[in-house]
This record gives sequence, structure tokens and C-alpha cells, in this order.
Amino acid sequence: MNIIKNEKNNSSFTGFVETKYFTFAGTGGEFKLENGKTLGPITLAYETYGSLSKDKSNAILILHALSGDAHAAGVHENLNDTGWWDEMIGPDKAFDTNKYFIICSNVLGGCKGSTGPSSINPKTGKPYALEFPFITVADMVNAQRRLIDHFGIEKLLCVAGGSMGGMQALQWLSAYPERIKSAIPIATALKHSPQQIAFNEVIRQSIMADPAWRDGNYYEHGQPEKGLSVARMIGHITFMSDQSMEEKFSRRLKNDKFSFGFDADFEVEGYLRYRGANFVKRFDANSYLYITKAIDYFDLSGDKLIPNGKDIHVRVMVISFKTDWLYPSYQSQEIVRLLKRRRVDTTYCELTSTYGHDAFLIEAPEQTALIKHFLDKTFNGYLVAGHDKSN
Amino acid sequence: MNIIKNEKNNSSFTGFVETKYFTFAGTGGEFKLENGKTLGPITLAYETYGSLSKDKSNAILILHALSGDAHAAGVHENLNDTGWWDEMIGPDKAFDTNKYFIICSNVLGGCKGSTGPSSINPKTGKPYALEFPFITVADMVNAQRRLIDHFGIEKLLCVAGGSMGGMQALQWLSAYPERIKSAIPIATALKHSPQQIAFNEVIRQSIMADPAWRDGNYYEHGQPEKGLSVARMIGHITFMSDQSMEEKFSRRLKNDKFSFGFDADFEVEGYLRYRGANFVKRFDANSYLYITKAIDYFDLSGDKLIPNGKDIHVRVMVISFKTDWLYPSYQSQEIVRLLKRRRVDTTYCELTSTYGHDAFLIEAPEQTALIKHFLDKTFNGYLVAGHDKSN
Repeated sequence: MNIIKNEKNNSSFTGFVETKYFTFAGTGGEFKLENGKTLGPITLAYETYGSLSKDKSNAILILHALSGDAHAAGVHENLNDTGWWDEMIGPDKAFDTNKYFIICSNVLGGCKGSTGPSSINPKTGKPYALEFPFITVADMVNAQRRLIDHFGIEKLLCVAGGSMGGMQALQWLSAYPERIKSAIPIATALKHSPQQIAFNEVIRQSIMADPAWRDGNYYEHGQPEKGLSVARMIGHITFMSDQSMEEKFSRRLKNDKFSFGFDADFEVEGYLRYRGANFVKRFDANSYLYITKAIDYFDLSGDKLIPNGKDIHVRVMVISFKTDWLYPSYQSQEIVRLLKRRRVDTTYCELTSTYGHDAFLIEAPEQTALIKHFLDKTFNGYLVAGHDKSN
Repeated sequence: MNIIKNEKNNSSFTGFVETKYFTFAGTGGEFKLENGKTLGPITLAYETYGSLSKDKSNAILILHALSGDAHAAGVHENLNDTGWWDEMIGPDKAFDTNKYFIICSNVLGGCKGSTGPSSINPKTGKPYALEFPFITVADMVNAQRRLIDHFGIEKLLCVAGGSMGGMQALQWLSAYPERIKSAIPIATALKHSPQQIAFNEVIRQSIMADPAWRDGNYYEHGQPEKGLSVARMIGHITFMSDQSMEEKFSRRLKNDKFSFGFDADFEVEGYLRYRGANFVKRFDANSYLYITKAIDYFDLSGDKLIPNGKDIHVRVMVISFKTDWLYPSYQSQEIVRLLKRRRVDTTYCELTSTYGHDAFLIEAPEQTALIKHFLDKTFNGYLVAGHDKSN
């Protein structure tokens, strides 16, 4: 993260970036949610990197994970806030801003500039809190589609993301196959297993157990810090692997001996406490509740991803990581099997990172090698000779 | 659990059992803890099954896991409370009460009759709470040794247990090899990995985050229910495997459709909430803090288990389970490698259960086949021809 200064003098520096806002479905408009309710006006915070070509054929939509945001690359002026996928997005990087126009927006339900439970409800003048309607991954993607319409982009070159970002990529493939040329779902699943639901449920219970949560109406009083912090600690364990924790912490002590008490004796304890406390400063507790539930509901298994018999002209590359036990490789392989059964042009790679689920954020070189090539082939009309022309 | 009625008419019924109490280190006595402090008087709750032979050579000490207790087998009169390892202990079972005298005591620091943080501090007339001194697995075993002395048992035929019970078995092997003929550590480790510490730390933080914990002084007000419940939910996820959760719950809903809210939609959510709420009724929050920390401190790696060059005449059988990701098989294999390097008579078996860490409590037939044979060989002087005679 401290390489920004170097990057500024470096051709791979994405440059200073700015978060922008797109608002739609205000008075007269309508945005219908999957559960039948309507919501509006809706604002999506987004950033773009690179330039949209005249024929608008070079646009890629990057999809963020649970606690991500629109700030995927570069830095904001006067801030030291490198984007969450900066190693992957920029000149000559995997998502090459010399060639492609990259868009990343904060999800509906989020808390980083897009409309979510912490936004002001125009009907009451107060934050929505639990008055915010329930949202799904399909709703997130439907909102993104409005943003893509706003840009006048008929067909995205690619949709790509890890974890919940991968779910959104699959949702694009399912809902709008005619609007994308390719998709890269990374470290993700067609649906949450009961173990994945269980971790999310404990995260939610931890937040809701904190009296400071006040049934969601904490905005005047401050976040339910303790519950949210414990929730995030649980998350962090699942993001790392047994091996990466061993490499990073082993049983090293914070001080030279045991406290014989309940202080953080081990480095790993101090790390988790730090990450928990830090999260409280940057992420809204209610957004965490809404988004984890959206993830748990997500289910594109079987015919829901692509109905049997439907002809899909999208190239897909699925990526998973060997030590990712939160989204194990077998779940990526289920995606691959399903796509191949539906005759979709699909390729798969399991990378041998030790970083567990975090690998999709960390392992830039290996992913770059795969993605750069895949995008080039997609962009340069690899499919011209095939049935893509029929689109 | 509903087979008790049958069992009562069955030869494998252990019978009605009674919890007894042994108190030591009162005024004048002294029980020194590993951290240098003294504690007393100390009471251990214990149960016994079967009869001690005249030469006291048939005694087996069963060691319980984190939230276990002295009630390992049988039922208490008028209660429907089958012991936690009843399938393993009784006539003709793995620990055959027709042959052996089985002892199981609640650990020091526990809350099921043995002295722990919820016990009355004789100096204040109030529960110790956090005035209770820090205890270690070595302290637990030292207290058990007093109980074994009290019985006049010079040498235990076997010490056996799973998870933290396995750690105690290893501690017996390390501290009192001359007092045991054999040890069976099951689903355990020489030391906690950072991932294991991390789960325990989140469990502790969840309890301590609850304002109802009141820095440990909650006894007049009731348990920190919400924090303790969330803590136990985390534990339960780690006890099960991805596969066993899939088999037990899959994505089945509690009701016929989604709530589009934060109710328990999925069966797995309802199950975890139930297990969490239930735990609050039966286990003291401070004991959970003390015991998890004791487990995290436990470390018998390298020369700490058996000093290089020391000649140990104990038979050891190590058992692990393929889908146990909380105490993965590689940790059991580390125990085996270390013991074999120290020329200890060691055998190892990885069982193919789908039940994850819970398997040691569930997989009775497979464990029985191994343990019954191992105990018979140990009891019937299998080692007579070997160097055991030299003891």
C-alpha cells in the first residue's frame, strides 16, 4: 500500500481518480426489486478508469465483494487510498486501462455512496435503517444495468469479480447474457452452502446481539462497534487459510510472555482485534446485514443460471484458489460443469495460492496472466469465426 | 438420546450413575498452579463406572472436551441425561465396564461441579469471577492426579479423550508417564495453530463484547446470554464439516419461502440459534473464557512432550477424522511423528467419518473397534515380553 509514491512516477499508475454518482428511478421512475417492492431514487457511486472507445466496445464492469466499494483502482487526490484491486486495474495490468474502459460501482445496499440502509429515506428525512427494502444480488445487477444503459453501452466486453463480485458476474450471465461478451467469476459459488450461510448468520447475530445496534436505529448514536467488530473478526478467519495464518502469525506472541489473562497474547489475536476495530470505522452494520443476507439467498444452481436449451454466446473463465476454504474449488467446478453442460464456452483454472479466499485480492501476477490473455482474445474478435456474430 | 428406556432393559446399559465430589488442598494443603499462584480448596466432580480391581490395575481416566463434564456415561436417577460418551463407555462397549474401572472428572476451571470461576471464593463468599486464577491444561491434569492418588491408583491403564480431552491425555504422557500404561489422544493437537487460536479469540471477544458480561461479574444478574450464544454458534460451525452440514441441512428453509428479512430462513440458521440459546442454560461464560485460553496456551511441541533421550514405556494410539477441519489430521500426524522419533510405541488411525470434529463424539462403532482391541492388548500384558516389565 505504500508504493503509491513510486506508482505516481510509474507508467502503471492509474492516476488520480474520482468517485461519481448516478441517480435514477426518482419521481416518476420506478425500480422494481426482486421481492416485488419498489425503491427510489437510487444513487450508485461509481468510478471509471481508461477511456470508452467511440463504438463503446471496450467497457468492462468490475464487481466488488461484500465490503468493497466503487474505488477499485488509483488513488483519490490528496489521499493515500489505493483502490482495492489496483494491482489488477491500470496501464498494462490485467484490466489494461490503455485498452479498456473500466467501470466499478458500489452495490445497491452498500454504504460507500450507493443507496443503502444508511442512506436518507426521502419519505422520512432519516436513514432508512431497517425500513430499507430487502435486496438481492439480482437487484444489485439490475441497478448496474441502469448505469451501463446510462453510459449507452450496449454490450460489455466483460463482467468480472471475486466472491460476491463473482456472484454478480454469474447474475449478469443469467439475466443479461445479450449484454455481455464475457464473464470472469472468481472464488465464488452458484449458491451458498449451509456452512457459508452459517458463517454469515453468526456474523449477523453478532451485530444484532449488540444492544448498540438498537434494532438498526443506531445512526444517531454511532455504530454497534463491539458486535460489528466481532462479526468482522469471524469474517477475517474465513478469508485466510490455515496455512497463510501459520505463515503470517504462527504462535508468535505480542509480548515476550503470556499475560495469564484475557489480553491479546498472540499476534493473531491482536491482528483480528485491529481488523475488527478498523472495520467499524468504514462499514455500516446494517449494510453488512443486508448484503450477507443477499448473498445467502443467491442461488443460480441448475436451470436458474442458464435454462436448458437456451443458446448463450458468452465466453466464461472461472478461477478458484486451492486453499480457499470459504469458497472451495469444488463450488467453482460446479459452475464450470453447469456451463459446459449448457454448451457455454468455458475455461477454468485453479490457482495454487496459500492465501485462502483473500487470494483473489492478493494474487495479482497469476490472475493477470490468465485474465490479460482472456480479455485480449475476447476483445480482438476471437469469436468472429464462431457463432458470436449471430448476436 | 431416546434409547435410554431400551438401554435399561439391555445388557449394555451402564446403569444409574451418581456424581461424586473430591476436595483437596484446603487449609494447610497447597495446590500450586503453573503460573506460580496457589489455589484451594479445590473440588473435582467425578463419576465412576465399573469396579476397581483389587490390584487397582484396571482404571481408565476419561478426559472431556471444552464443554464436557464428569457425566460421561449412564444416566442419573430420574433424569433423561445420558452421558456424553455413553456409546463408548459401558458393558461390552469400547471402555468395557465389565472389565475396567472408568473415572471421569470435570476439569479444574469448569462449571459442572469442579472448582472454577463460578465457584464461591472462600475469601469473599462470592463467585471468583475474574479473581479466579488463570489455569492451564497442566493444572487440569495435576488436579486429576490428586484424584487418582485419592483412589490409591498407582498406574492408570489408560488416559483417553478427544479434543481438549486429547490434550489432557498428551499432558499426562508428558508429566506423568510413569503413572499411565497407555494413552489415546483423539482429534487433538500438540498445540493450537493460529487459526484455532483465532476461533477461540473470536469466541472470547463475543462473550466479552456483551455488556451483560460486566467484566465477569454477572453472577447476580444472569449470563451474558447474547454474547455467549453467538460464541457457541461459532464453535458449532467448527465442530461440523462442510459435508455434514450439507447432509444435515443443505439449503432447506424453515418455512416454505424466504422471509426477506433477518429471521432464520434456513434450517441451519435455526439450528445454530437453538444450539447457542441452549448452551447459555448449561455453561458458564467465564469458564468458557478460562478454558479456551488454557487450550490456546497448551503447547507440547518438540521436546516439551517427551524430552529427547527420555525412555517412555507407554503405548499410544492416536485417532483423527478425515473431515475434522478444526483439528485436522496433519496435527495428529505431528503427534505420531514426534512420538515415533522418541521411540514411543505408537499407532495411528485416521477414520473416514463425515462428521468433522464432532466425529469423536458420534462415531462409536469405528472407534470401538480400535479402542477395545488396544485396551485388551494393554491390559492383558501385551508388553510383558517387551520393556514394560522394567517399569
